[in-house]
Amino acid sequence: MIWDGFPEIRRELDRVQAVIRAEVTRPGGVIAEGLSELANRDAKLLRPAFTILAARIQTGGRAAEERIIRLAAAIELLHIASLIHDDIVDGAEHRRGGKALHRKYGDRTAVLMGDFLFARCFSLVSDYARPENASLLTGTVGHLIESEVSEYTADNESEWSVRKYLHRVIGKTAVLFSLSFHIGAAEACDENCDQRSVEVLRRIGYNIGIGFQIIDDVLDIFGEQRTTGKTGAVDLKQGILTLPVILAANNGQRARLIRTLEKIARRHSRKGGINRFWENRALDEVRTRIEEAGGRQGAIAAAEVYTRRAHRELDRLPDSADRATLRSVTAQLLSRAS
Amino acid sequence: MIWDGFPEIRRELDRVQAVIRAEVTRPGGVIAEGLSELANRDAKLLRPAFTILAARIQTGGRAAEERIIRLAAAIELLHIASLIHDDIVDGAEHRRGGKALHRKYGDRTAVLMGDFLFARCFSLVSDYARPENASLLTGTVGHLIESEVSEYTADNESEWSVRKYLHRVIGKTAVLFSLSFHIGAAEACDENCDQRSVEVLRRIGYNIGIGFQIIDDVLDIFGEQRTTGKTGAVDLKQGILTLPVILAANNGQRARLIRTLEKIARRHSRKGGINRFWENRALDEVRTRIEEAGGRQGAIAAAEVYTRRAHRELDRLPDSADRATLRSVTAQLLSRAS
Repeated sequence: MIWDGFPEIRRELDRVQAVIRAEVTRPGGVIAEGLSELANRDAKLLRPAFTILAARIQTGGRAAEERIIRLAAAIELLHIASLIHDDIVDGAEHRRGGKALHRKYGDRTAVLMGDFLFARCFSLVSDYARPENASLLTGTVGHLIESEVSEYTADNESEWSVRKYLHRVIGKTAVLFSLSFHIGAAEACDENCDQRSVEVLRRIGYNIGIGFQIIDDVLDIFGEQRTTGKTGAVDLKQGILTLPVILAANNGQRARLIRTLEKIARRHSRKGGINRFWENRALDEVRTRIEEAGGRQGAIAAAEVYTRRAHRELDRLPDSADRATLRSVTAQLLSRAS
Repeated sequence: MIWDGFPEIRRELDRVQAVIRAEVTRPGGVIAEGLSELANRDAKLLRPAFTILAARIQTGGRAAEERIIRLAAAIELLHIASLIHDDIVDGAEHRRGGKALHRKYGDRTAVLMGDFLFARCFSLVSDYARPENASLLTGTVGHLIESEVSEYTADNESEWSVRKYLHRVIGKTAVLFSLSFHIGAAEACDENCDQRSVEVLRRIGYNIGIGFQIIDDVLDIFGEQRTTGKTGAVDLKQGILTLPVILAANNGQRARLIRTLEKIARRHSRKGGINRFWENRALDEVRTRIEEAGGRQGAIAAAEVYTRRAHRELDRLPDSADRATLRSVTAQLLSRAS
């Protein structure tokens, strides 16, 4: 677990998990059962950890107030809600090393499970955040979902653009990462607090978010299921193009990549199951092509750029144990794909 | 159309519908196609009309500002979003006289369609409402969804309680009706505005909401599909008990009602389709029992009580054309089941 090396943060996250557990058991019945099981699966808890770290940095390392813990929990609930709905929309099989909720409980119940967590997130935020931050959160939810919609309705040509890819990554991950930092930083301090450091922390979240998502996309193609907790190459099978593929295509592999990818997507969408043997052969072919055209290394280099930007922003904050924790954790997140 | 007799309000609602149409076409592709088709179906537009009427009452009958029109549209988008998700959760076939979206586009796409509208509602509200009203709205969304969850997870015994029924009706309908009035009333006036009339208008919405939902539940059992735009007796088939059934049960019909209702629910949930002939016979039997035990008349009388409360609150406001419109419309809503 990424936080095991940082016992102080680990303790704060235990408090966050206690709030999450209390929230997911509220409805009772099958909703509580499914959500509790999902909430107990291994999770990195990055977003709540970032909220807490930002708050601690603003208050010179003081343990987070109960209010901050609840807001951190609210952000994780929002994240889980969007995962549950995304898994329905994408027809995903696995999540966090177990079955996706809609595979276990059906679409109907899973819709309600996601909606319930959205609702609880909004209640916590409207109870514990300042109005301007609550309003920022609702705007971010808008961004998150619109980005999912644009992924769903993208035309073929725009999928091959690095700029469009980054736009999707920002909407999907970076805005919520930067919100996690912003809420922690802004809520931890009173009116006299240093607005500049709020802005610096927000930018740190934004850059970490882009780097993190790029590495996640590399792992979707090249990672082992054991590490990612998801079915392999989900994006490729659905015809969603991520940075390694796009970069490889730009290196002259585009026509050959398209042919193989189309075969994979066609086979995958065909009714009555997939021929695993054939699918694995086609996926291996795509992986080799991407690797040879430098798509994997290029994507990792891009993630490094954003991580370095985050580290440069970190340098602008006063030295502290929490700053060192952030630096170490972002380096770990980057190294997942090496 | 309920607003045809009120051309001024009809004109305001045309502006609301223009905003809604612009919002639902934003995403493009299949999402825009499905949402536009749904948005163009006949709808009563009660919630946005209430927002506008409340604003007009607060400003002595002035045409609503553009900001109020957008907030009214946001509330209708929220309502449509929750209908789309509810129809998935309930497995409903029809909505507003056409196919339910998930029946036409599948669960996956319908989840995203609902989420998209939630997102657009939140964006509009965070752009155009004061922070305290935006926060009130997020709290209301919480209520709405928790009420849907509690309907889903209710135990058998609590379903026979009038008190629990009213609790569900409040969560499902009255809180959004009262929010519609509150947003219009509070946003239309500046800091010097009469806070008492905001409170009176909020209570009017609350009572209209309860009366409206009771009549809707009567129509679900006794109405014709042509009038309701929904499949008949949806609640009964799903084992959801509403006021007519509960009142009939309290009049000594409980044991016999339970037997017939259980048969209906069992047949309905059985795989491979329902024997329509048998189903219609069982439903007719339930209708007769409810009617004979006074369940239908009792429910209508209860709706009258809440409508009268709304009218008494209306009397506390200064006389105006908009007040007369509200009185006439609530009387029409009540008379739907007579």
